[in-house]
Amino acid sequence: MSPQKSKAIRTEARKHPQVQFGMKKYPKMNRPGLLLILLLSSSVHGFQYTELANYVDSHQEEYIEALREWVAVESDSSNIPKRSDLHHMMDLTAKKLRQMGGNVHLIDIGNQELPDGQIVMLPKVVTAQFGNDSNKHTVCIYGHTDVQPAKLEDGWQTDPFNLTELNGNLYGRGASDNKAPVLAWIHAVEAYKSLNMELPVNVKFVVEGMEETGSNGLDAMIQSHKDTFFSDVDYIIISDCGWLSRKPALTYGTRGNCYFFAEVEGPKQDLHSGVYGGTVIEPMTDLIGLLDTLISPSGTILIPGINEAVVPLYDEEWKMMQDIQFDLDDYKSKIGVSQLMYSNKVDLLAHRWRYPTVSIHGIEGAFSDPGTKTVIPAKVTGKFSIRQVPNMEPTVVQKQVTDYLQSMFAKRKSPNKLKVTMVIGARPWIADTQDLLYEAGKLAVKTVFNTFPDLIREGGTIPIAKTFQTVTGKSIIMLPIGGFDDGLHSQNEKISRYNYIEGTKLFIAYLHEVSQIHKSRV
Amino acid sequence: MSPQKSKAIRTEARKHPQVQFGMKKYPKMNRPGLLLILLLSSSVHGFQYTELANYVDSHQEEYIEALREWVAVESDSSNIPKRSDLHHMMDLTAKKLRQMGGNVHLIDIGNQELPDGQIVMLPKVVTAQFGNDSNKHTVCIYGHTDVQPAKLEDGWQTDPFNLTELNGNLYGRGASDNKAPVLAWIHAVEAYKSLNMELPVNVKFVVEGMEETGSNGLDAMIQSHKDTFFSDVDYIIISDCGWLSRKPALTYGTRGNCYFFAEVEGPKQDLHSGVYGGTVIEPMTDLIGLLDTLISPSGTILIPGINEAVVPLYDEEWKMMQDIQFDLDDYKSKIGVSQLMYSNKVDLLAHRWRYPTVSIHGIEGAFSDPGTKTVIPAKVTGKFSIRQVPNMEPTVVQKQVTDYLQSMFAKRKSPNKLKVTMVIGARPWIADTQDLLYEAGKLAVKTVFNTFPDLIREGGTIPIAKTFQTVTGKSIIMLPIGGFDDGLHSQNEKISRYNYIEGTKLFIAYLHEVSQIHKSRV
Repeated sequence: MSPQKSKAIRTEARKHPQVQFGMKKYPKMNRPGLLLILLLSSSVHGFQYTELANYVDSHQEEYIEALREWVAVESDSSNIPKRSDLHHMMDLTAKKLRQMGGNVHLIDIGNQELPDGQIVMLPKVVTAQFGNDSNKHTVCIYGHTDVQPAKLEDGWQTDPFNLTELNGNLYGRGASDNKAPVLAWIHAVEAYKSLNMELPVNVKFVVEGMEETGSNGLDAMIQSHKDTFFSDVDYIIISDCGWLSRKPALTYGTRGNCYFFAEVEGPKQDLHSGVYGGTVIEPMTDLIGLLDTLISPSGTILIPGINEAVVPLYDEEWKMMQDIQFDLDDYKSKIGVSQLMYSNKVDLLAHRWRYPTVSIHGIEGAFSDPGTKTVIPAKVTGKFSIRQVPNMEPTVVQKQVTDYLQSMFAKRKSPNKLKVTMVIGARPWIADTQDLLYEAGKLAVKTVFNTFPDLIREGGTIPIAKTFQTVTGKSIIMLPIGGFDDGLHSQNEKISRYNYIEGTKLFIAYLHEVSQIHKSRV
Repeated sequence: MSPQKSKAIRTEARKHPQVQFGMKKYPKMNRPGLLLILLLSSSVHGFQYTELANYVDSHQEEYIEALREWVAVESDSSNIPKRSDLHHMMDLTAKKLRQMGGNVHLIDIGNQELPDGQIVMLPKVVTAQFGNDSNKHTVCIYGHTDVQPAKLEDGWQTDPFNLTELNGNLYGRGASDNKAPVLAWIHAVEAYKSLNMELPVNVKFVVEGMEETGSNGLDAMIQSHKDTFFSDVDYIIISDCGWLSRKPALTYGTRGNCYFFAEVEGPKQDLHSGVYGGTVIEPMTDLIGLLDTLISPSGTILIPGINEAVVPLYDEEWKMMQDIQFDLDDYKSKIGVSQLMYSNKVDLLAHRWRYPTVSIHGIEGAFSDPGTKTVIPAKVTGKFSIRQVPNMEPTVVQKQVTDYLQSMFAKRKSPNKLKVTMVIGARPWIADTQDLLYEAGKLAVKTVFNTFPDLIREGGTIPIAKTFQTVTGKSIIMLPIGGFDDGLHSQNEKISRYNYIEGTKLFIAYLHEVSQIHKSRV
């Protein structure tokens, strides 16, 4: 790319809609305070994008073979009998990084205790380092190579562990979540090395094998490596999410997750509903009554204090969401409902990303099998979660929910006992989209896709982002290459050949753009 | 017993509190119309009760061995891989009856289709006949020799299939439900025969092996044998229930069971609650809201028309319940609750037996496992049942419930779909306690236990009673020998040695008392 063209794009990028409400309106966010980051509009080293992109195009069959090899390993972190496959997957990950010339370590993160008391070894965390030039930025790429469960009989059209290409899509469990993105990052580094081009930044990798079951052991590993492995890291990049539409996207926020158990306990054992029905206040009746006080039929959260805590929607956000490429009818037909909770795009996106919601997941302890059983369950546990957003603190949400449910329960005058527990309290994460990491992202997308990305959020939670933010204090970007319809966690997960290959180019371009961020002490 | 003593007891029995509201106030009951039944106060044949009772006492170890042999067979009718054990149990039942000299048949009642399409053979129904004297009454005893599931690891103190005597109790699955009562009836017949005493009545048996899973095939068998095996039966006796306290009891009613599925269907597949939460009206929210409209916190049924249909509590009923031996504190401590739905005996018994109630059993399709899952279930089915009473017709209840839930659902303005289905519609059963079968029962209890029995009802449903009543038009009595604390369907099921042995004597006495009912055509 010519310096003139590059400069013109950079100017355009700065005009592109941004989230202007960054730190001022989300006062609890950590701002990386030490660095004044300036984006310079000319490149220090010439960026030979065309050669790199050609290299990627001419090696795409090898990339697909590499993905095939990884997808073939059933690295399901929830399946204990498959744990040896998961260990094998981490070895393969390490081997691949070593083949690229990285300085690779397999970090022991200890054991996992199962509910039955059995102790099994956690999969090791793979770290790798490419380059150690103190004059360059250092980026750390986070990914995972464990996967969700999958079985052909769940409704897969193809064997989930045999990567199969159909109509330009590469079907297989873990294809999009997260094996192809991890490989794309490795291949991006490889392209520079194979063409004997200097890596524009030092690149570190941290790849785990427990993401799908809660990243057991990773928080402690990050904490204990804060002053060693992570000490020289400037930026953290996560590519464990997807676009919103066919348009590329950068992700700048996720919701948190406060997950509650509401346990109502009555008789000392399950009772026959014929023999005892009509003589005891049934725990299920109480629990159903309590769960019914959480949310209105139209979706309003009824717990006092929750809605009041939420930052109002600013005009800039409204405008940004209005400009995002998103089709309500597509969304409706994708999930198969005749009517959504909100009928316009901005309301829908806002309630998906930046307003809290309550979902009731189910009840443990009651009768849940097919058929009929005439039981009065003795102890039932309702499970629900609140996806919370800035500025909702989990500890405050916990108190609000507990107090509310206990007060509703007191009104029932039930002889049963209620216990409310918050079992997960994962904070939301939000990035400052004025951070130059995001400017670099826009430019990389423009280089590869000839368009600027949408700035989007995730309705779900990626707790590791908040951990990285809190422990390391570094800026984080989520830079997805997965498609909007990749079917993560579902049957027939896929990544398209297009997203995989162009995504590799995006990562190549992004390494260059990050190198163009110049830091100077203030 | 001397004729004088016998006469005095009979006079007393008639004064004993009775349910006076029989046919007049429950107009839908079938009255056995052909017979005018008179109780005569003197015996045609001398009744040698003492000899018979002594015989039972001196053979009790053999009776316990017989029960041990039967309990050892894991005749769990819900466990398909154990089906051969169940067939073996029916063979053992037939063998035992043949050993007593009965005319025994094993009736093929066809096959059972499993949910997966597999076809398995139903256990044969055993019929037997002792005596064929047209000058005598013919009683038909119904029982079953299949059992509920049981596993040591469910919390049994002893191996559930190895009958174990501890402190006068005989522990084992099926001990009380219903193997010991069936054996006690067989041993009652045997006692007469062994002492070369003429059986006072002809005795028939119908013993099935599918009671615990809904008596599959039995209704059709009764219907098809209506004009053959059942044609000369005068009275049907069911001993598949228990006493209410330590005092013997006769049972004159059961509640029915209308079991409902309320299915709410939304998205075409389960959704991730992080990714989609806040954009769709969740089926669980709708279902919880609907289930919460069924019953008030204090136990009032909120479905219009249900409470209005129930026969008011008559003074005679109130008085009879007031006289029943029943301790509220014992009941509370037995089920382990600090407070019951009603705090006085009559209200509690009335709501256990003769008022309807709603129980919510559970939800199919939602998350019910231990742990956390962030799912929006796409289709959820709430399961609840109404124990209905005279005069609640299942078809009317079905319409009341369906109309009510659909109207409540319409108010929610949800885009989801609601389907309400009644999957069981079993009628309540009630006997006329002025029927001389009950008079005979009181006298038999007085003979053996030197007290008159309580007249009680069952809160649960014994659908076969209603089938016998409807198809054969005969009078039915429920004559229990199980203890109030036998733990039917629970861990550590037992029958006491006392109840088993004295229960055998009760059946001996009852056969005599029934023979004293003289019939004449009107």
